[in-house]
Amino acid sequence: MGKGLKKREEDFSSWYNELVSKADLAEHSDVRGCMIIKPYGFAIWENMKAELDRMFKETGHQNAYFPLFIPKSYLSKEADHVEGFAKECAVVTHYRLKNSEDGKGVVVDPDAKLEEELIVRPTSETIIWNSYKNWIQSYRDLPILINQWANVVRWEMRTRLFLRTSEFLWQEGHTAHATKLEAIDETEKMLGIYAQFAEEFMAMPVLKGLKTENERFAGALETYCIESLMQDGKALQAGTSHFLGQNFAKAFDVTFADSNGKSQHVWATSWGVSTRLMGALIMTHSDDLGLVLPPKLAPIHVAIVPIYKGEEQLIEISKVANEISTKLKQRNIKVKFDDDDKRKPGWKFAEYEMKGVPLRIAIGPRDLENGTVELARRDTLEKLSVNRLGLEDKIESLLQEIQDNLFDKAKLFTNENTRKADSIEGLIKILDEKGGFVLAHWDGTKETELKIKDKTKATIRCVLLDADNEIGKCIYSGKPSEKRVVFARAY
Amino acid sequence: MGKGLKKREEDFSSWYNELVSKADLAEHSDVRGCMIIKPYGFAIWENMKAELDRMFKETGHQNAYFPLFIPKSYLSKEADHVEGFAKECAVVTHYRLKNSEDGKGVVVDPDAKLEEELIVRPTSETIIWNSYKNWIQSYRDLPILINQWANVVRWEMRTRLFLRTSEFLWQEGHTAHATKLEAIDETEKMLGIYAQFAEEFMAMPVLKGLKTENERFAGALETYCIESLMQDGKALQAGTSHFLGQNFAKAFDVTFADSNGKSQHVWATSWGVSTRLMGALIMTHSDDLGLVLPPKLAPIHVAIVPIYKGEEQLIEISKVANEISTKLKQRNIKVKFDDDDKRKPGWKFAEYEMKGVPLRIAIGPRDLENGTVELARRDTLEKLSVNRLGLEDKIESLLQEIQDNLFDKAKLFTNENTRKADSIEGLIKILDEKGGFVLAHWDGTKETELKIKDKTKATIRCVLLDADNEIGKCIYSGKPSEKRVVFARAY
Repeated sequence: MGKGLKKREEDFSSWYNELVSKADLAEHSDVRGCMIIKPYGFAIWENMKAELDRMFKETGHQNAYFPLFIPKSYLSKEADHVEGFAKECAVVTHYRLKNSEDGKGVVVDPDAKLEEELIVRPTSETIIWNSYKNWIQSYRDLPILINQWANVVRWEMRTRLFLRTSEFLWQEGHTAHATKLEAIDETEKMLGIYAQFAEEFMAMPVLKGLKTENERFAGALETYCIESLMQDGKALQAGTSHFLGQNFAKAFDVTFADSNGKSQHVWATSWGVSTRLMGALIMTHSDDLGLVLPPKLAPIHVAIVPIYKGEEQLIEISKVANEISTKLKQRNIKVKFDDDDKRKPGWKFAEYEMKGVPLRIAIGPRDLENGTVELARRDTLEKLSVNRLGLEDKIESLLQEIQDNLFDKAKLFTNENTRKADSIEGLIKILDEKGGFVLAHWDGTKETELKIKDKTKATIRCVLLDADNEIGKCIYSGKPSEKRVVFARAY
Repeated sequence: MGKGLKKREEDFSSWYNELVSKADLAEHSDVRGCMIIKPYGFAIWENMKAELDRMFKETGHQNAYFPLFIPKSYLSKEADHVEGFAKECAVVTHYRLKNSEDGKGVVVDPDAKLEEELIVRPTSETIIWNSYKNWIQSYRDLPILINQWANVVRWEMRTRLFLRTSEFLWQEGHTAHATKLEAIDETEKMLGIYAQFAEEFMAMPVLKGLKTENERFAGALETYCIESLMQDGKALQAGTSHFLGQNFAKAFDVTFADSNGKSQHVWATSWGVSTRLMGALIMTHSDDLGLVLPPKLAPIHVAIVPIYKGEEQLIEISKVANEISTKLKQRNIKVKFDDDDKRKPGWKFAEYEMKGVPLRIAIGPRDLENGTVELARRDTLEKLSVNRLGLEDKIESLLQEIQDNLFDKAKLFTNENTRKADSIEGLIKILDEKGGFVLAHWDGTKETELKIKDKTKATIRCVLLDADNEIGKCIYSGKPSEKRVVFARAY
């Protein structure tokens, strides 16, 4: 298999699929819609997890673990929730197999039918609130600030690695509060954490906003989201934080005695990000040579490739490479010295480019003589000859520079691809010709949003939290509007 | 609910259940056999995970993720494996629900029946080797050293929190090798890592041995295990490492071209430990007051409890407590200063004893005057008045002392409860009166092992890797035997 990728310009979708495969991130399994996350892809996800987990814990959250299975009846308890989640899901109906009569394998044992079917969790509000019922009696038991890292399953007909798979990995926070205000604060705080993570670690600029009723989480009173713009001009929802009001508390009868001894229903939030972030990361930064990773999430920061003829040269170069490695590791910089003799330098260069390693060091006999190394940046593809003296400082500052540069580049792209439209035709024209985010007036009704979606294939990504007040007319109905909302075609 | 526990002597099983509940470690969910791991329990598991994960990575392993679901036919591909695992498991037969006709909830949509049923993984050899088939062509692709942290499901009729649940969390390593020798080395290396983890971190002494054919993993040629002795005299299998030979490579047709270009089947290992370790940890060290945790796995090392009357005293004590906290945190010692005004000191003392916090500091007005604190050890329940000068050093060394003491105590217990039997009556007598490990001669046959099990309810826990050669006669058949094996009643 050649290492080259389709060009993004030619076919963004094929480019993405080829990159995921050739950078060894993930692959389809034989099980419909389920992916295998390969070690290199998983290492990136682990870095994401570690940072998010740290941020959750720093804001007072604790991890726990709830069952994979949800009794079917639980899903029906919250009316909106069941509409949203009880449809395409994996249903466990039996708990035993037996040898088939023809002796060729196993069959489901009809005697082992469950009394009530179990659903593989598509999200865990129901099973968690059913537990919170027993955990909460008084205001002293609140707040409960719990997160869980888990796998979830939503049966998807059309799947794409990381972006939409039947099984995916995620974290889901589920918090319980004594007051509405505190729950809203929590919802907004977690949105802030997602935005901070996206921008600081993924180097991915995001818009923060509210979903319209239409796009809201099933069971939420308000869904906050972060949205980011991919290089093909399509938007991607990167994380959501839901203010659930008292819906789940009422559905599962979760009340507490307040400080006056009065019984009240508990207020709830839930919030999650998933392996979908891997897709967002790829489509934000990568190029036609492969993956481009922000240093803060890269499993390898620096790859060192020796350029040599014969074992003697390799020994000399290895000495220098190992010295550099040791010094870099002392600064928590992750280095790989690739002295594999079976591969040529050119192959290795292409490999580390494909895998998005932020910096590459090449060391040849000339470098030994001159006390230099050749340093190549993955983001700009620049090469520079650098003195070994002070190399560690240089690398440390370059990694920060790359991190910043990736963010700035993506930010510029987002800004350049955020436009205004004042008519439905204008919206369609921008979407067809440029893509991107389009700010337009909307009358605030579900009907109009759906009509616009029908005509344009674009949805309202969000109502920006910091939207300017601007009097205008809905581009579809002509009715008055007080601010523009963000339209885009989306993943 | 009172905080007291049943005494271990009276009813070990109730003691265990009450402890798991009152120390806030886990609880049963409404879903049969599935547990909820509560934040405090999960924090201990996270500490275990972190250490194991570090040890796996230091020995060259990488994490990855494979699907939750296994097509039913995969399980049948390895003949022994299907016998062991395809029986009690969760079977997904449908992928959609629909609104019921009476409008009261949802029902399984009969039109959404899967062509082939999916099994929720009881273990992942089959789905993983089906993938390795595509990953391995040449000896250059070997070894593959992969681990996954995952949830697995084995439908259990009688469940106990942590020890036996239908869903549990674990890690499963799956490695592929070019030679038999390398695979055996890997199997033994990972057993060594499990033993090291158990002894160094859990402070739990273990025996290292081989399972008999009877107790072997379904599909393995050899199962290595670590076994440890619980305080009630029953053994617990704490981890297993399997040499799988070429069984899975043959079942899934995984071959590689060796360095001479000759096609060969790949050699395999798999190895795992699970949330069962939580049960082992509890039953090894804990006492009638609650959990006792080895410092290396404790979520909180030191709890500081202020003893005060009035706000003024609390302010003074808080100053000192915060100073101590800061200094301890600088040494990576996890401190909780509990200034909750709603609870009395006595309640807090009982609470931190129940939760197994290794050290407790109490600070009262007297201590302020004298420049001292009261330090209480959870393991020995000793209290000592300690000068604040040099307190951090004292605490650091005490934590190590507690870690060592727990190990020594458990080691002594294991030694004192390892006995020899030279007849079946002798074996039964020891098992009935004392429990523990019993070393006895066995003729090496499956039949005899099953007969002994029938008579004694004990199984052969393992054949020790370092067993002494000793000529003797099988306690059941009288046939010759070359070494004693380890019998015990077990969890």
